[in-house]
Amino acid sequence: MKAIVRVDLKQGVLDPQGKAVAHALQVLGFEEVSAARQGKVIEIDLEESDKAKAESRVKEMCEKLLANTVIERYAIELEG
Amino acid sequence: MKAIVRVDLKQGVLDPQGKAVAHALQVLGFEEVSAARQGKVIEIDLEESDKAKAESRVKEMCEKLLANTVIERYAIELEG
Repeated sequence: MKAIVRVDLKQGVLDPQGKAVAHALQVLGFEEVSAARQGKVIEIDLEESDKAKAESRVKEMCEKLLANTVIERYAIELEG
Repeated sequence: MKAIVRVDLKQGVLDPQGKAVAHALQVLGFEEVSAARQGKVIEIDLEESDKAKAESRVKEMCEKLLANTVIERYAIELEG
């Protein structure tokens, strides 16, 4: 089974990376860009066939390692 | 309109970040993890209502700034 975890900054948390991307795009001539935010995706291969169990384990991984839940939120998607 | 760009390393390119995540998870007791890969997501707010035009502009942004196409591949999703 494959888990796709998306980690983004929570609303209201300053995102300098996103701001830099938006600014760079505007400077390059993409004036239609009004804002940008940057997050990360982590794809995890799991040796686990039970979907419910996999989801609860991946949630635990997010809480323990993948996301800083003070400033970040995460979303889990399971495939296969 | 909002564009969601996902940038990942191409198959075969060494991914030390992903390897570090997989290793850290295993050390934390998640033995079911066999591998992990890390990529990034960039959400862009666009002042553009034409979907086809937005897609071609975002593609241009990827080629020029967002992805290093020598080692990375990108996928574009448009919303709204």
